[in-house]
Amino acid sequence: MGAWNKRDDMLIHTAEPFNAEPPPAALAGHPITPTDTFYSRNHGNIPRIDPATWRLSVDGLVERPLELSLADLQSRFEHHTVVATLVCAGNRRGELMAVRDIPGQTPWRSAAISTARWTGVRLRDVLTAAGLRGEAHHIAFTAADRATGIDPPQTFGGSIPADKATAGEVLLAWRMNDEPLPVAHGAPVRVVVPGYVGARSVKWVERITAQPHPSSSYFQALDYRILTAETDPDRAPAGSGLSLGVAALNSAILTPSEGSHVLAGPNVVTGYATAGEHRAVARVDVSADGGKTWRVADIEPSPGPWAWALWHATVNLPPGRVEITARAWDTSAATQPEHPEPLWNPLGYLNTSWSNVRLIAAL
Amino acid sequence: MGAWNKRDDMLIHTAEPFNAEPPPAALAGHPITPTDTFYSRNHGNIPRIDPATWRLSVDGLVERPLELSLADLQSRFEHHTVVATLVCAGNRRGELMAVRDIPGQTPWRSAAISTARWTGVRLRDVLTAAGLRGEAHHIAFTAADRATGIDPPQTFGGSIPADKATAGEVLLAWRMNDEPLPVAHGAPVRVVVPGYVGARSVKWVERITAQPHPSSSYFQALDYRILTAETDPDRAPAGSGLSLGVAALNSAILTPSEGSHVLAGPNVVTGYATAGEHRAVARVDVSADGGKTWRVADIEPSPGPWAWALWHATVNLPPGRVEITARAWDTSAATQPEHPEPLWNPLGYLNTSWSNVRLIAAL
Repeated sequence: MGAWNKRDDMLIHTAEPFNAEPPPAALAGHPITPTDTFYSRNHGNIPRIDPATWRLSVDGLVERPLELSLADLQSRFEHHTVVATLVCAGNRRGELMAVRDIPGQTPWRSAAISTARWTGVRLRDVLTAAGLRGEAHHIAFTAADRATGIDPPQTFGGSIPADKATAGEVLLAWRMNDEPLPVAHGAPVRVVVPGYVGARSVKWVERITAQPHPSSSYFQALDYRILTAETDPDRAPAGSGLSLGVAALNSAILTPSEGSHVLAGPNVVTGYATAGEHRAVARVDVSADGGKTWRVADIEPSPGPWAWALWHATVNLPPGRVEITARAWDTSAATQPEHPEPLWNPLGYLNTSWSNVRLIAAL
Repeated sequence: MGAWNKRDDMLIHTAEPFNAEPPPAALAGHPITPTDTFYSRNHGNIPRIDPATWRLSVDGLVERPLELSLADLQSRFEHHTVVATLVCAGNRRGELMAVRDIPGQTPWRSAAISTARWTGVRLRDVLTAAGLRGEAHHIAFTAADRATGIDPPQTFGGSIPADKATAGEVLLAWRMNDEPLPVAHGAPVRVVVPGYVGARSVKWVERITAQPHPSSSYFQALDYRILTAETDPDRAPAGSGLSLGVAALNSAILTPSEGSHVLAGPNVVTGYATAGEHRAVARVDVSADGGKTWRVADIEPSPGPWAWALWHATVNLPPGRVEITARAWDTSAATQPEHPEPLWNPLGYLNTSWSNVRLIAAL
């Protein structure tokens, strides 16, 4: 096994940096995604870090700056396990690119999302040991991987609000699915921020900085934001636009697969839905007539409050070309927009429109 | 001034029970809604309660049941003021009824929403005095107003999760906009639950019960829920469907008014947006071409974290019949669905579709 531990049928969007997602059907039926099936989203090289020499700096607006070895982290703080879904902010971008091209961006399908059991220590406990000061409103992460495709080249980074960082569910993790965290997923230690877009779950973390403002990293100030359709992202001032943090309500169909041939009549449709921090998936509907009528899906038992909701529904398919559609509702009774067109944005983030899969149903 | 203290141009949907909303334009330009403009939503009579004899019972899963007079409430607990928007779960139902009728329900336009400064004591402090027990997962309210249009007739009630009840922003209020709470708005004391649908902000409250399950009141178990379009609400089991609590992302245009005549060229459009608990309004867009292009509105300074976002934008209107459209985005980058049709539900709640106003623009 190399750095990746990946299945052979991953859809590899780019080899360097390594960006890959599994076939949607491979996510179905697994509340916890097998590690070899977990999507990979990278902006730079995959760094190989010697766990024996790795150090984590905790600095900025803290009373007692820390420098922690992996052994320090593992011995000084209580261990916790959280089942959390990570989702790429660009998940389902391909549907936006079908509306209008987004040059230079990865055309993710609907499987840039996965769920794992993460084990490590609470970021809160580490920040408490360092003595977080009152003016520290944001916690910034700096990683070891270097993105060379941007100007100037820089290491990956990002930040989360201090309230989130101290909320208890945010981990510094060194295990994934009860095995050592693979290099490709951030070994020796990564951040896991449940309920947020994946970009904030920084892999190969080396430095944690408490500061009054969000990270000035390219990946916080310029990337990972929703700009209006008319905005030139190269000219939009740093920090402008809608910065991505909490993940929005979304869902997608996992099976049957796009373009597949099925038998007309009752067919089981499966998929996932996520609702982001402080919301839960309250209902999922599936339609075989373009949204005129809907069938309520059964939501499967959840592996934890920070995990996706997997669901299934049996729908009756007429013979011929059929489109099946899914939408989710959250606990505030908000539901997804219909079409991707009005959601198009220049960096192609957060396509939260209804999920559609086209099939051929034979008699 | 009688019980209502209401402006003359309120749209009165029903006189008994009293249900009325102001003209949308009357909400514009007022971060705090004048009391005489505040919408009224009632299920029964408006009870006239002598503040001197009013008592509040606090019972159920508490260590020390309480019976509090108004003087007790005012003298034993610290006073707090919260600016909070209340919104009827049926706000904008009229647009759903234009899709398909919803017999017996009030066709609210877009002004069943208002914002006030509420002063009282924290529900948390009262529950702490009573000694909330660990098994108390819900806090139920029982009111003095009796709804006679339902079978069996019963007093109004509802519940909120204990986590919300103890979160600090929930008040037992006796003042509104720095004046005594009017009888029509719940005097002597009402509950104010910021970030939730208005139905949980129970007026004329008389009893607070800590219990393991949500309220079994008609208004919690049978009303105020989203049922699927195919469901007969009279046959849907109690507690089934999507029970309403946290308010969903929504927005509406306040000016220009529907059907008004304006001059072609630049016109200022104003409106409101709300995002519910744990989200904020991050962006509002206005379109004069049915959503093909959008202009980002300016969001006005907020009177507080639990208040709506008022906004304005200048859009260029071509001569002729014009439709202007607004949509809001929240801090998770979720945005509103396009059309009311797919949101239609048998009780007509939570129309969160794009807001549209039709105008005639003259040269």
